[in-house]
Amino acid sequence: MSEDIKKITARCRERIEARDSEVLAWKALDWDFVERQIDELAARPMGERGPLFGLPVGIKDIFDTADLPTGYGSAIYEGHQPSADAAAVARLRVAGAIILGKTVSTEFAYWKAGPTRNPLNLERTPGGSSSGSAAAVADGMVPLAIGSQTAASTIRPAAYCGIVGFKPTRGLISLAGVKALSNSLDTVGVFAKDVAGTGLLSGVLAGRPNLMAHLMPGAETGSPPRLALKKSPEWEKAAPSAINAVKKAADLAAQHGAAVTTDEVPPGFAGLADFQTTMMACEAARELAHEHRCHFDALSQPLRDLLTEGESISAAAYDDTWRRRDECLGDIDSLFGDADALLAPSTLDEAPMFEDGTGDPIMSRAWTLLGLPSITLPCGTGENGLPLGLQIAARPHQDEKLLAIAAWFEQLLASAR
Amino acid sequence: MSEDIKKITARCRERIEARDSEVLAWKALDWDFVERQIDELAARPMGERGPLFGLPVGIKDIFDTADLPTGYGSAIYEGHQPSADAAAVARLRVAGAIILGKTVSTEFAYWKAGPTRNPLNLERTPGGSSSGSAAAVADGMVPLAIGSQTAASTIRPAAYCGIVGFKPTRGLISLAGVKALSNSLDTVGVFAKDVAGTGLLSGVLAGRPNLMAHLMPGAETGSPPRLALKKSPEWEKAAPSAINAVKKAADLAAQHGAAVTTDEVPPGFAGLADFQTTMMACEAARELAHEHRCHFDALSQPLRDLLTEGESISAAAYDDTWRRRDECLGDIDSLFGDADALLAPSTLDEAPMFEDGTGDPIMSRAWTLLGLPSITLPCGTGENGLPLGLQIAARPHQDEKLLAIAAWFEQLLASAR
Repeated sequence: MSEDIKKITARCRERIEARDSEVLAWKALDWDFVERQIDELAARPMGERGPLFGLPVGIKDIFDTADLPTGYGSAIYEGHQPSADAAAVARLRVAGAIILGKTVSTEFAYWKAGPTRNPLNLERTPGGSSSGSAAAVADGMVPLAIGSQTAASTIRPAAYCGIVGFKPTRGLISLAGVKALSNSLDTVGVFAKDVAGTGLLSGVLAGRPNLMAHLMPGAETGSPPRLALKKSPEWEKAAPSAINAVKKAADLAAQHGAAVTTDEVPPGFAGLADFQTTMMACEAARELAHEHRCHFDALSQPLRDLLTEGESISAAAYDDTWRRRDECLGDIDSLFGDADALLAPSTLDEAPMFEDGTGDPIMSRAWTLLGLPSITLPCGTGENGLPLGLQIAARPHQDEKLLAIAAWFEQLLASAR
Repeated sequence: MSEDIKKITARCRERIEARDSEVLAWKALDWDFVERQIDELAARPMGERGPLFGLPVGIKDIFDTADLPTGYGSAIYEGHQPSADAAAVARLRVAGAIILGKTVSTEFAYWKAGPTRNPLNLERTPGGSSSGSAAAVADGMVPLAIGSQTAASTIRPAAYCGIVGFKPTRGLISLAGVKALSNSLDTVGVFAKDVAGTGLLSGVLAGRPNLMAHLMPGAETGSPPRLALKKSPEWEKAAPSAINAVKKAADLAAQHGAAVTTDEVPPGFAGLADFQTTMMACEAARELAHEHRCHFDALSQPLRDLLTEGESISAAAYDDTWRRRDECLGDIDSLFGDADALLAPSTLDEAPMFEDGTGDPIMSRAWTLLGLPSITLPCGTGENGLPLGLQIAARPHQDEKLLAIAAWFEQLLASAR
C-alpha cells in the first residue's frame, strides 16, 4: 500500500520537476515532509484510512500549514511558519490526503499576481487568486487542490486553466486558519480535473459524504435538469465566444431533455456585482488592518488602493450591501424561477496575457455575494484556442444537486466533443 | 501629555497589582510593552492621536497580539506568540489605545472556565467566555476591554459583573486574527462601565464614528423609544428576580414616555435557541479540526463532547439552521412589530458559584443566531445582591439606534436608583 502511495507522489514529483521551472505553481515543497506523511499513512489501520487515502493535494498559500511555511502571497510573510494547520488542512489529513505543498496565491488573495503561468500557454495568466492550485491541477502536477473565492478566485482560474473548479455554498467549509480578505465573502473552493474530484474533496472538507454521492454508480439527476440562462448586465461585457459556448451547452442540454429558459435577471439582482465590490473593499480594509498599520509600504499599489477605497466607503453604503444581499436571498426564487440551476459564462473570455493581470472577476461577483454554490466546467474555446468555462450555480445549500447537474453536463459535453 | 497617559496606566497597574492575585483576570501583562506604547504615543503628531488616545484596553486572549503571547484559553497554545495583531487590535493601536494586556478566556471561548473570579464576589463566576475582560473592567483594572460572543460570551459576563457589554451587529467588526469557534456566529463584543465607553470602543473597531454619536451633547433618541418585551420559552427558566428587573425597567421607561408592549415571540422565532446550539456545535467541530486531530487529549471533556456532537449532526440539520435563520431575518419585522428595540433579561439569574461553571447562555442564544446588535446594562440585583442585566436588542445594522436607546435607559436607571 505504501508503495502505491509512493508511486502517486513520485509521479507528482516527476511532473513538478519537469515543469514547474516554467509553470511556477508551487510556493513551498518539502519532499521529506511528503515522505513522513507516507510513512504515517502506511501505519494507519485499514479502518482509518479515509476517503482521500494517499491522494496528494495542493494547498493555496493562504491556508496555514504547521509543517510548511505560509506566506499569504505577500513578502511581508515570507518564510512565516504557522503553529497550526488550517481546519481545512486538518480535515484533509484526517481523510488520509498527502499535503503535497503550498501553491502560489496572489497577494493576500487579491489582485497582484504571483509568478505562476498558465500551463496551457505560458504567455497567459492562470487567473487568480488561486493561481497555483488551478495551474498545478491543470498541468497534472497534483490531482486535487484547494483554494478560495472572494470574488471569482476559484471559478476564474479553473476556467482559464481548463479544469473543474467548485465553490460550495458560503459557510460550508471552515475558514479557520485561512488568511481573511473579506469574511462575509471568503469561501473555500476546490480544483480537480473532473466533477467527481471536486465532489470528493469538498465532501471531505465540509464533512458531507453526500457531496460524493454522484460518484456512486447510477447516481444522477433523476430527470434532466431545469436550467436558466439569466442574463445580467455583466453578459454584455463577455466575448461572443464565451456567450456562444454557454448557449451551445444549453442547446445540447435541451437536446438531451433539459428544460432551458433564457431571460434577464430580475431588476433587484441586476446590480449585485457592484455590491460585491463594495462589500469586499470595506471588509478588506478592516481584515487587513494590521498589514495596513505595520506594512503599508510593503503592499502593492492595487491593494493599497483597495484599502484606501474601503476605508472611504460610508457605513450606510456598507450596510446597504448586507441589506441588498439579505433581500435578494429572501427573494431567491424570483432569480431561479422553476430552474434547478443557472448557467453563465465563467469568465469574460479566455485567459489574458500574463502581463495584463489575472483577469476580470465580474462574471462571478454576484453569485459570490449571494453565497450560491457554483462550479465551472471546461466548455469550448476562445479565439486563441484556450479554454472557456460553463459556470453553473444552484440555490444556497443545494450543493449536492449542483454537483449532480454538473456531472450530467460533464458527460454530455464529453460525448459531444 | 505623556505624563497624563502614564498616570492612567499607572492607576491600572496599581489596581491590578492590588487585586489580580485574587481576581485573576489577566493572562498576559508586560509593563515594558506598555512603556514602549506610551513612548510611541507621545511621539505622535497631534493630528494622529486618535479617539482612544492613551486609553488602556484589555484584550481577550483569543485575539492574536504580535507583542504578547496568545493562548486561546488552552494549554495547547500556552506561550504561543502570533506574528501579527488581530485586525481589531490593529485598529485599537491606530486609534491611540494602549494594549494593556491579555485577559483570560475560557478554553477556545467555549465552556471550560479559566481561573478568573467575579470581582464583586470572589466565590462567584464572572461568566464566560470573556471572563477576564468583564472582570477587569468591573474591577477598575482597565476602563475598556474587548471580547467576543458566539452564544452569550459578552452579554453574560458583563451582566454578572455589573457592567455594560455591547455586541454589535454580526459582521461589523473584523474577526481576522481571532481564534474561531463558530464562524457564522462569532462576533466581537466590547466592555465598559457605561454605554458611552462601549460606543467609543465599538465605533473605533468598526470604523464607524457614528457609533459614538450619543456621546455628543444633546444626542439622544428624538423621542422616547418604542420597546417590546417578547417572551420566548427561555423566559420560563429565568429567576423571578431577573424577570422582575426587566419589568421594572420597562415600567420606568413607560413612565418616561416610552411605548411598551408585552407579548410572546412569534412561533417561528420560538425555537431559535436550539438552532443556535446546533449551528455552534457543527461549526466548532470543523473550526477546531486541527486541535481535534492533533491535541484531542489536551481538550476538556465538555469541548470533546461538543466536537463529537458537532460531527454527529447531519448536513440536513445544519442546513436547517441556516434556512431558519434566513427565514427569520427575512421576517424580522414580525419579531419587532412597531418596536425599536426588544427587552429581555440578560441572564437567567445572578452569577452562579465559581464551582458551578460560567453560567447559562440561553438568554442570548436566539439573538446571537440572528446577529442582532444587543447590549446589557446593569439593572437590579438578585437574591444574593449580585447584579442582574437588562438585555436590549435592535434590528440588524441599527447599532446606532440601539446605543441611543441604551444611553437613554442608562440615565433613567441611574436617576431611579
